[in-house]
Amino acid sequence: MSRVSPNVHWELGAVTRAQREERNQHPALVVWLTGLSASGKSTIATGLEQRLFADGVNVARLDGDNVRHGLCGDLGFSHEDRTENIRRVAEVAALLHELGHVAICAFISPYRSDRELARSLVPPDRFIEVYVKCALSVCEERDPKGLYRRAHAGEIRGFTGVDDAYEEPLDPELVVDTATLDATRAVQAVYETVAARLGAKASAQARAAD
Amino acid sequence: MSRVSPNVHWELGAVTRAQREERNQHPALVVWLTGLSASGKSTIATGLEQRLFADGVNVARLDGDNVRHGLCGDLGFSHEDRTENIRRVAEVAALLHELGHVAICAFISPYRSDRELARSLVPPDRFIEVYVKCALSVCEERDPKGLYRRAHAGEIRGFTGVDDAYEEPLDPELVVDTATLDATRAVQAVYETVAARLGAKASAQARAAD
Repeated sequence: MSRVSPNVHWELGAVTRAQREERNQHPALVVWLTGLSASGKSTIATGLEQRLFADGVNVARLDGDNVRHGLCGDLGFSHEDRTENIRRVAEVAALLHELGHVAICAFISPYRSDRELARSLVPPDRFIEVYVKCALSVCEERDPKGLYRRAHAGEIRGFTGVDDAYEEPLDPELVVDTATLDATRAVQAVYETVAARLGAKASAQARAAD
Repeated sequence: MSRVSPNVHWELGAVTRAQREERNQHPALVVWLTGLSASGKSTIATGLEQRLFADGVNVARLDGDNVRHGLCGDLGFSHEDRTENIRRVAEVAALLHELGHVAICAFISPYRSDRELARSLVPPDRFIEVYVKCALSVCEERDPKGLYRRAHAGEIRGFTGVDDAYEEPLDPELVVDTATLDATRAVQAVYETVAARLGAKASAQARAAD
């Protein structure tokens, strides 16, 4: 196979992010939702995904459900494994960003340094950290999967908020308090922040949908 | 946050692959290029990406360049690490398939069982294995990065074709022999196979472009 065929334009290189963004008519982004278990991250992520998809945005969503059984199926919940889990997710999010997606990531991601790594993999204006804030006592009361109960019973070790630290974001782009906002309003708050970053297209469609 | 809001349709679930495929007007696929180092996989992958993008296909490309420094940056080239490398790539390809992409993967992927794993992660009609065939002697002659020379000099261990096995595909969807086909024809051969699988849309555009 010839490695030099100057007249064949597709050999000049890969399809660029700029080409993809031009086709999509919006910039790529990483929207990173962090917070305690049962704080509402997945609900917000799914709602946001639906809203953006309806706007014609090229949206993707990553959460425990689609990585913990696959890409990160070899990892547990030790400090080291949590960090490796978030490192891989951050790399996939950066890849999705290169592919022009608005990549929504919903992970407890308890350690500040792991979230900073995720941020560092895309340009500064392409990362939106959303702190899905909720008092531990409220999360423990919701406890939809009985995980807090099991953690307190000693059946699960290293559970965030019980016997492992959650390091609150120091300077997130947005804080959504789900102890006071219901799901619809929480999605709306994140949606507005994302739409503003996506610019004219998504904003106009959002207004038209009002 | 309320976990039950039956009137809010976006809480019914995530955006599905079917919804994405309907918007894209083509099915998602994984196109897996396997072959020796310097067989021409990356050239074909890049050319195919450009062709499909020009057709309006939602295409993605994975190769060593975008995973070896990031997602798989912790892995070397031992048998075990190669298998883990391909496992992660296969999982990301399956994720891209779920997102509606035609995911082009270009990796030596020397072991049959690793490629079979990749195939198993998507429905049977969604995987196209392309054997980018090229005589070892031809690859060694091309040796664009001097890797064969270094492997023969003992500076690189476990190099596919020199001191590690390449297990040829037994029943690939397509074989492209790059010792006899030039780059343009090799891309065309893969493109035609992919376009046929994508159905009417891509085929019609391919004819219009002739």
